[in-house]
Amino acid sequence: MNTGKLFVIPSLFSIKSDKNLIPSYIINNLNKIDEFIVENEKKSRAFLRKILSVKSEDNFIFHTIGKHSNSENLNKILNNCHKGINIGLLSDLGCPSIADPGSNVVQTAHLNNIKVIPLIGPSSIFLALMASGLNGQNFTFHGYLPVNNIDLQEKIKKIEKKSINSSQTQIFIETPFRNNKVFSFLTKHLRNSTKLCIAKNITLDDEVIFTQKVSQWKKNNYNFNKKLCVFLLNGGND
Amino acid sequence: MNTGKLFVIPSLFSIKSDKNLIPSYIINNLNKIDEFIVENEKKSRAFLRKILSVKSEDNFIFHTIGKHSNSENLNKILNNCHKGINIGLLSDLGCPSIADPGSNVVQTAHLNNIKVIPLIGPSSIFLALMASGLNGQNFTFHGYLPVNNIDLQEKIKKIEKKSINSSQTQIFIETPFRNNKVFSFLTKHLRNSTKLCIAKNITLDDEVIFTQKVSQWKKNNYNFNKKLCVFLLNGGND
Repeated sequence: MNTGKLFVIPSLFSIKSDKNLIPSYIINNLNKIDEFIVENEKKSRAFLRKILSVKSEDNFIFHTIGKHSNSENLNKILNNCHKGINIGLLSDLGCPSIADPGSNVVQTAHLNNIKVIPLIGPSSIFLALMASGLNGQNFTFHGYLPVNNIDLQEKIKKIEKKSINSSQTQIFIETPFRNNKVFSFLTKHLRNSTKLCIAKNITLDDEVIFTQKVSQWKKNNYNFNKKLCVFLLNGGND
Repeated sequence: MNTGKLFVIPSLFSIKSDKNLIPSYIINNLNKIDEFIVENEKKSRAFLRKILSVKSEDNFIFHTIGKHSNSENLNKILNNCHKGINIGLLSDLGCPSIADPGSNVVQTAHLNNIKVIPLIGPSSIFLALMASGLNGQNFTFHGYLPVNNIDLQEKIKKIEKKSINSSQTQIFIETPFRNNKVFSFLTKHLRNSTKLCIAKNITLDDEVIFTQKVSQWKKNNYNFNKKLCVFLLNGGND
């Protein structure tokens, strides 16, 4: 009997996205998978139904993981791989484990000598970086910036300084209802010459990805409310 | 007349890779493109021939960019977008602009108000991070580490310290014939408790991605000579 594998499977950014954004070899791999570890069962079922174009998701077993998943629980689920079962790890949006839950599942798989296979698919961070024109040879992804005003201002100044000193592109995300606040802090506290890229609703019909100097961003009113945005900045000579 | 766009198109890691790793919507977009900006015309022609399954690449115009491409030259090529022509940016392996040339092309497009559309495809860095089990909420990609022995040792110590202090995953690559040297430096200079992931030949038949503590890596002989490797480490409690 072969040992099962853990497949790490990217999802779409919206259930309305074109299903052709997902490479067809994912479908071949999905046909080998019996059980899924997911963030949200309903969303994962909808994604699988869309990608597989059939209602065959009824045959799958779903394990929901949350913040409270402990390693004992994960060991128990992943132990099924040693019985020859392939398991898929799915998050609600984009790539599991990148700005998304899942790395503890993968870590547990490595500790149990289970082979981990990552599959190609959408990552908003990488798409934004590719389309930003900013340095992709050296970059940091910070996740979310601090919520508190003083900490946020300090963090913005700190990461801008880092980009000036080392030409390292700085990438971060924000919860959609706080995008406009972060944007106003960026235009207020960054230098005029720093390049700022905002990637809005990537892969959706109203996708806009645009890079310009902070002095240019200040000249117009923008509204990023409730849009999925990735922010990238670089004050160096990249 | 509509203004043309700049499409940023990921390639495969090897011409031997399964063409189904590339999402089918890329083929739809390729059919709208007339001109390409490429690293290497021969490799790009081979990729397009494989993906499109026809010899239609004979109709395309190729512009090769190297280290000596100046902005005047790029302005001239990208100006074709204002004549309604769509241009594709292709690198030899994986995603253009990420650990690969192309960001100056994208930057020039933004300066000329040309819309940039990134397409989904393989990135060895993101696939490695997804499969590493290391922190994907906060990470830095460094490109290549220094070649000089003293600088290399210092850099390894510095990035390990950063990962311990902030749980930030540190990612880097190496030219294939220097992988074994970097691996020996990592096992010599990192703490035993630091987690090290090596992702070898991602998406190829002999893909191996494995994370374990440095103390474990020391116990066996490994040979990464001439393999495409991504290295990831984290000494923090991620």
